[in-house]
Amino acid sequence: MNKKLVQFIDGPNLNLLGDREPEIYGSMTLEDIHKSVKDHIIKNNFDIDVKFFQSNAEGEIVNCIQDTKNTCSGIVINPGGFSHTSVSILDALLAVQIPKIEIHLSNLFKREDFRHHSYISKGVNGVICGFGPNSYLLAVEGIIKLI
Amino acid sequence: MNKKLVQFIDGPNLNLLGDREPEIYGSMTLEDIHKSVKDHIIKNNFDIDVKFFQSNAEGEIVNCIQDTKNTCSGIVINPGGFSHTSVSILDALLAVQIPKIEIHLSNLFKREDFRHHSYISKGVNGVICGFGPNSYLLAVEGIIKLI
Amino acid sequence: MNKKLVQFIDGPNLNLLGDREPEIYGSMTLEDIHKSVKDHIIKNNFDIDVKFFQSNAEGEIVNCIQDTKNTCSGIVINPGGFSHTSVSILDALLAVQIPKIEIHLSNLFKREDFRHHSYISKGVNGVICGFGPNSYLLAVEGIIKLI
Amino acid sequence: MNKKLVQFIDGPNLNLLGDREPEIYGSMTLEDIHKSVKDHIIKNNFDIDVKFFQSNAEGEIVNCIQDTKNTCSGIVINPGGFSHTSVSILDALLAVQIPKIEIHLSNLFKREDFRHHSYISKGVNGVICGFGPNSYLLAVEGIIKLI
Amino acid sequence: MNKKLVQFIDGPNLNLLGDREPEIYGSMTLEDIHKSVKDHIIKNNFDIDVKFFQSNAEGEIVNCIQDTKNTCSGIVINPGGFSHTSVSILDALLAVQIPKIEIHLSNLFKREDFRHHSYISKGVNGVICGFGPNSYLLAVEGIIKLI
Amino acid sequence: MNKKLVQFIDGPNLNLLGDREPEIYGSMTLEDIHKSVKDHIIKNNFDIDVKFFQSNAEGEIVNCIQDTKNTCSGIVINPGGFSHTSVSILDALLAVQIPKIEIHLSNLFKREDFRHHSYISKGVNGVICGFGPNSYLLAVEGIIKLI
Amino acid sequence: MNKKLVQFIDGPNLNLLGDREPEIYGSMTLEDIHKSVKDHIIKNNFDIDVKFFQSNAEGEIVNCIQDTKNTCSGIVINPGGFSHTSVSILDALLAVQIPKIEIHLSNLFKREDFRHHSYISKGVNGVICGFGPNSYLLAVEGIIKLI
Amino acid sequence: MNKKLVQFIDGPNLNLLGDREPEIYGSMTLEDIHKSVKDHIIKNNFDIDVKFFQSNAEGEIVNCIQDTKNTCSGIVINPGGFSHTSVSILDALLAVQIPKIEIHLSNLFKREDFRHHSYISKGVNGVICGFGPNSYLLAVEGIIKLI
Amino acid sequence: MNKKLVQFIDGPNLNLLGDREPEIYGSMTLEDIHKSVKDHIIKNNFDIDVKFFQSNAEGEIVNCIQDTKNTCSGIVINPGGFSHTSVSILDALLAVQIPKIEIHLSNLFKREDFRHHSYISKGVNGVICGFGPNSYLLAVEGIIKLI
Amino acid sequence: MNKKLVQFIDGPNLNLLGDREPEIYGSMTLEDIHKSVKDHIIKNNFDIDVKFFQSNAEGEIVNCIQDTKNTCSGIVINPGGFSHTSVSILDALLAVQIPKIEIHLSNLFKREDFRHHSYISKGVNGVICGFGPNSYLLAVEGIIKLI
Amino acid sequence: MNKKLVQFIDGPNLNLLGDREPEIYGSMTLEDIHKSVKDHIIKNNFDIDVKFFQSNAEGEIVNCIQDTKNTCSGIVINPGGFSHTSVSILDALLAVQIPKIEIHLSNLFKREDFRHHSYISKGVNGVICGFGPNSYLLAVEGIIKLI
Amino acid sequence: MNKKLVQFIDGPNLNLLGDREPEIYGSMTLEDIHKSVKDHIIKNNFDIDVKFFQSNAEGEIVNCIQDTKNTCSGIVINPGGFSHTSVSILDALLAVQIPKIEIHLSNLFKREDFRHHSYISKGVNGVICGFGPNSYLLAVEGIIKLI
Repeated sequence: MNKKLVQFIDGPNLNLLGDREPEIYGSMTLEDIHKSVKDHIIKNNFDIDVKFFQSNAEGEIVNCIQDTKNTCSGIVINPGGFSHTSVSILDALLAVQIPKIEIHLSNLFKREDFRHHSYISKGVNGVICGFGPNSYLLAVEGIIKLI
Repeated sequence: MNKKLVQFIDGPNLNLLGDREPEIYGSMTLEDIHKSVKDHIIKNNFDIDVKFFQSNAEGEIVNCIQDTKNTCSGIVINPGGFSHTSVSILDALLAVQIPKIEIHLSNLFKREDFRHHSYISKGVNGVICGFGPNSYLLAVEGIIKLI
Repeated sequence: MNKKLVQFIDGPNLNLLGDREPEIYGSMTLEDIHKSVKDHIIKNNFDIDVKFFQSNAEGEIVNCIQDTKNTCSGIVINPGGFSHTSVSILDALLAVQIPKIEIHLSNLFKREDFRHHSYISKGVNGVICGFGPNSYLLAVEGIIKLI
Repeated sequence: MNKKLVQFIDGPNLNLLGDREPEIYGSMTLEDIHKSVKDHIIKNNFDIDVKFFQSNAEGEIVNCIQDTKNTCSGIVINPGGFSHTSVSILDALLAVQIPKIEIHLSNLFKREDFRHHSYISKGVNGVICGFGPNSYLLAVEGIIKLI
Repeated sequence: MNKKLVQFIDGPNLNLLGDREPEIYGSMTLEDIHKSVKDHIIKNNFDIDVKFFQSNAEGEIVNCIQDTKNTCSGIVINPGGFSHTSVSILDALLAVQIPKIEIHLSNLFKREDFRHHSYISKGVNGVICGFGPNSYLLAVEGIIKLI
Repeated sequence: MNKKLVQFIDGPNLNLLGDREPEIYGSMTLEDIHKSVKDHIIKNNFDIDVKFFQSNAEGEIVNCIQDTKNTCSGIVINPGGFSHTSVSILDALLAVQIPKIEIHLSNLFKREDFRHHSYISKGVNGVICGFGPNSYLLAVEGIIKLI
Repeated sequence: MNKKLVQFIDGPNLNLLGDREPEIYGSMTLEDIHKSVKDHIIKNNFDIDVKFFQSNAEGEIVNCIQDTKNTCSGIVINPGGFSHTSVSILDALLAVQIPKIEIHLSNLFKREDFRHHSYISKGVNGVICGFGPNSYLLAVEGIIKLI
Repeated sequence: MNKKLVQFIDGPNLNLLGDREPEIYGSMTLEDIHKSVKDHIIKNNFDIDVKFFQSNAEGEIVNCIQDTKNTCSGIVINPGGFSHTSVSILDALLAVQIPKIEIHLSNLFKREDFRHHSYISKGVNGVICGFGPNSYLLAVEGIIKLI
Repeated sequence: MNKKLVQFIDGPNLNLLGDREPEIYGSMTLEDIHKSVKDHIIKNNFDIDVKFFQSNAEGEIVNCIQDTKNTCSGIVINPGGFSHTSVSILDALLAVQIPKIEIHLSNLFKREDFRHHSYISKGVNGVICGFGPNSYLLAVEGIIKLI
Repeated sequence: MNKKLVQFIDGPNLNLLGDREPEIYGSMTLEDIHKSVKDHIIKNNFDIDVKFFQSNAEGEIVNCIQDTKNTCSGIVINPGGFSHTSVSILDALLAVQIPKIEIHLSNLFKREDFRHHSYISKGVNGVICGFGPNSYLLAVEGIIKLI
Repeated sequence: MNKKLVQFIDGPNLNLLGDREPEIYGSMTLEDIHKSVKDHIIKNNFDIDVKFFQSNAEGEIVNCIQDTKNTCSGIVINPGGFSHTSVSILDALLAVQIPKIEIHLSNLFKREDFRHHSYISKGVNGVICGFGPNSYLLAVEGIIKLI
Repeated sequence: MNKKLVQFIDGPNLNLLGDREPEIYGSMTLEDIHKSVKDHIIKNNFDIDVKFFQSNAEGEIVNCIQDTKNTCSGIVINPGGFSHTSVSILDALLAVQIPKIEIHLSNLFKREDFRHHSYISKGVNGVICGFGPNSYLLAVEGIIKLI
């Protein structure tokens, strides 16, 4: 029997995690984080499967969101820098009628002004930010509650 | 003898038409709309050919606009979410010296504030919005008058 | 048998067309344009009649819009300078439940900043701008599709 | 013996009441409202006479305000769409040294942003809004207290 | 038989009336005004009872609004300085499904810029301002018409 | 032999001069001012004729400006409250290719913020303000130098 | 042996939950939610104790935050309407050197503009919003990861 | 014989001084500061008495200001976070006709943008900020010069 | 017998006139303009004397304005670039209780946005702009009427 | 033995004190104020010397600030109109590593909006304003506490 | 022996150089410019190698910047239209700890308002703009000084 | 035979270089930098001469720019704090028809918001910033390419 599938999407520069400005983003790599997500699901016997996608290209992220139609039950997206600039990703999220969560590693509201506004927030059910890699684990909990 | 060629360009998420928020965007698919464009040209014996291109990627749309140089006589672009965020597409349009029309299915001025401003409008001859799929047919009429 | 009637309304200074800043507005007079509208309808055997009204007075335009109630099936309005300043015309349009189109000769988005915002756009179905006198002919096509 | 005279002024599109967007403006016509004002005065034996004026033209409203000089003891004005755009009406009110009240049927502060600001409010003694046709009756009470 | 009960709420510094900046707020004390409200009801045989509450504390005003649930049929609130700063009072008003009126002694729109915006206006049915102590009497008339 | 003709245009509420807020606008009536203009021309043997037009209606002022075509050599306009709200008058002025001067009795820059911006200033050659009725006499001198 | 103690703080009007605008805030009462928090801790054998505090008074919330000094290991705060207006609560949070989480039931970024900005976000480690009552359970998970 | 009495008022979180962000606010407690104020008065033989009041509640501070009527000759207020958000405290200060000084420990103009604006400054005679605890001693000197 | 003395002040870069951007500023030198002022006074038998001062230094212009105290009866100032940036010159003008006129060669309202605002306008009786060198002659007429 | 030296700097138009707008700035001359500063130091046996410098020229004030390097222990500056416009003076202050105080005679926050912002405040330790000539005496006390 | 390697990156539409709006961008092609860079290095015996990359796709530019890690010693980027819209490219630059220079052919500060702000400038060491193709040669000099 | 002469101009506080905030501006003195410019010219056999001018006075810098007329072939200006406040210097640069470069030691776009806008940039050919003292050497290269 099939488990429900959740698509995790990571935006630009998140492939650099562990290496990039560790004082802001921490020392875990994206691979580490993804593994922690899987471990968390197993440890808690959560009844979902997860897929991961990372891209530095806005268009590929739009494609990925569109592809969740009919295949996925939820989306967890860390839009990175696209949070502040992409109406296209917002529109893709608005077009997909499944639960969606926006996450961020850092607390954007403590950083530069231009990081305080996210187009993406208007296209999701909930937002989680500021917990470092744990934002991903909280998102697992959150998406399960929504789907 | 060659007819003049018009490039139609559809931006992000327009490939979802028919399925996406039908209360805003209607129930025709993009394919349906493109077919209606062709039918309209045939029915009216308009002396143009049309090409269609859709992409969710800003860079591919810039490429497509650049490629109209020396091959096309006009551009009709529905930039979707890129309307509000893409200086690159504006710059590409400014670099191409043929008639250009911006179209939208919905009347953007009745929607969220951030949809009221379009960079693209500064790079085209005319704008048509709010007629649903008929915006495309009006654009056929319009581009013919300009080229 | 009665054809459906469409009211064309032209706002302030459009009576000067042909003479006024021809580098922006072209050399056709408003009378020329109105005649081209009629010719276009005849040539295409469109099943509508049209009436024209021009005024430099906001109140008269409000009156004209109100008078379309029970007599007209559609409105095409070029509000001229009132686009940017008249809530009264907007309110009149909102009060009339027939298809309405806003048109402009020039592409307002390439002109002074204060011409980028139109109150009228919030009260119409669709907007067409930048095609010179052809904006009127496109509006004929557009209003037929809406009524 | 002469009663004090109060001029009621209704701005653009208020002649459409009863018919226009009844979910916002209610089902009474302006005539109904004016009659209810007269009935209210009679029922309460208020010692005033009232005159009514409605116009869709800003200039006529300015004229009407100017004409209250030496003839009227108070003004009740529902400026409609001119609330947000007319410095001329404000200036006329400022030039007339009798009690003045601004009224609105709907609570403007719950509607679109551009309806939150009224030039007229700077030229009157008091403002009453949001009571539907009863705004007129409250204005009767209010103007009596001021004159 | 029980009459309907209306809660009057006065915000910060209104307990100083009569003494505080009399050129703006007049010479009647809050007690005087409350008495005039009662007299007005008696004189007119209005079928309502009234309660009065004044506080300089935002939280107590929120409490008072919440307490109207199931006990009162209407609220008349003069929020004083909280008009411009309290989302909490707005939220309390939005949570209570009875008619609500916002009143002010002075015409705020003629005073400092920061007094032109009221959060409270978004949570009430109607607004009355600028009639001095008579704003309270007009509110009696207004609330009766709403409940 | 024909003298050059200059059209003086006075906007809304200027017909009240002498009576209206004399601490701002002075005690001369508009008639007095117009007479002083004529006297000034005669006294100085200036080789122009003048016409005067006052209206409280925006549309009539637009008409008047349009009528200067082919008949007048210059325009002196005191737009009153329309200074801040009328794009239509601006457009009319832009359409007329003769020298144009905007005048004001008071120094607008010392008054309320909304009086600091004038659309009209973008449509004239020069601006004169703050000299009371003498603004009109200076305008006579100014227009002579421009025509 | 003592478990670590987490203070939950609920701001104004949250005592109305279940009753207040259920289409936005859901049908659970605050008591229900607090019980679900306790149940969640027990079910998961989390090694923390929790305390709850609700107030409609800004000052009491500041006091409560100050009182966590030396007694608590973490704070979870749903500031309600104070999110947008209270620098005092922000300052109190900044003064307390333990992990802090801001939560909201609804996704504020989809609501009125004035709800998009939170002073509180600058004083916490992380933010969770939009999960309804589950925001509280996610906060339990989140605070455990931080303390 | 009675000395003149000066009321010192300290706003939210100032009770935490010494402990709270000492790099900004220094290591003296509020008690230490108050004692230094008294010592300063004694050492200089100043002919005033002082009272101290601290509260985290806006309403209590409004009450305290109102209570100075008829009992005090001057107010020194450090409004803390209420500087930026409280119109109620401003209104209370405006209602009290004795000399008033606003003080701050830190130089607010070097901190976050939202701390640059103080409503309170509009209700006091003078402002002193940036001298740490010495701001209180300078205020003693200042208030003596004003009363 | 002494004639009344009027100080003309020219700000930065006006010493370049004739040479500097002649398409904006014309071909007359400042010396030419000053001579035309003197000629105009002689030709009209105006009963005033004039002094001229030009400086590129804000402080020297402040000094010059201060020096008019007790010696001059009027000031005519073309502040050039200081119009938009100098509060010091505004303050100097406010401190001198004689008639003052601000002039500009070009119509600033048709140029870049930052040239639309003048601090100086708040410190003068009247403003004249857009008449080229004739602005100086009009200022002669204007100052005579004011002194 | 050398006393510590404090440089007092007075900006533009402060040389007019006593004469200039006395209702705002009082009747003491700058010389009177400087003498009161010296008297205050003597009377209190303060262990400092003072120097005074006034200039209407921004550059000279920058020079004066630079010259305090190695010679002075503190700066007290009343920047007058330069408060709102001079980044150069701010930069000079930032370059000098001694205690610095900004003072103003009037409470700027009660005056025109453009006087509410001071660049200088970002370059000083503390700010004192609104005490009239006593601002200077308070600054003496303040600078002694800082050096 | 290996020379240090510098990555040149050209953003959208720069592949059109020579052909695109030559009055703004000049007549050299991008290839010509790249060749001139190489020639300049050879002619001056600079001890660096250069690589070139152009793309119209934001994601590919992010990739290219990321790829400089461990392989390059410096980046010279002409971000074209992405200057004004790409937080992703900014973040990529911030993540790479080598010297970085932003260049532009034209002086953006003389063009449309939306071209005055560059996100990229916050992620580079230095900026060079307005020198046409020579901006690239200056960047060679600049990057050598930084690496 | 005469070499072309280039005027270097340094604005306020640049005479403090080496001593002033060395973490931002570096440890070289302005004299050192000027010597490095001369050395760079000699070492490269550039065919230009250079002159240096530094002033803290806006007027002297305007004078210096004006004096380049007929004597110099280029200007390199580091306007320091005047970048953000001086329209006069902008106007002087606009009046001089030779190549002009604006330079800054630091990358202004990474500093306080008010340093992001430069009036001067609108008056020069190119801008170079962020290279420390090397900005001057790059300017030598740049100006040679322009003259």
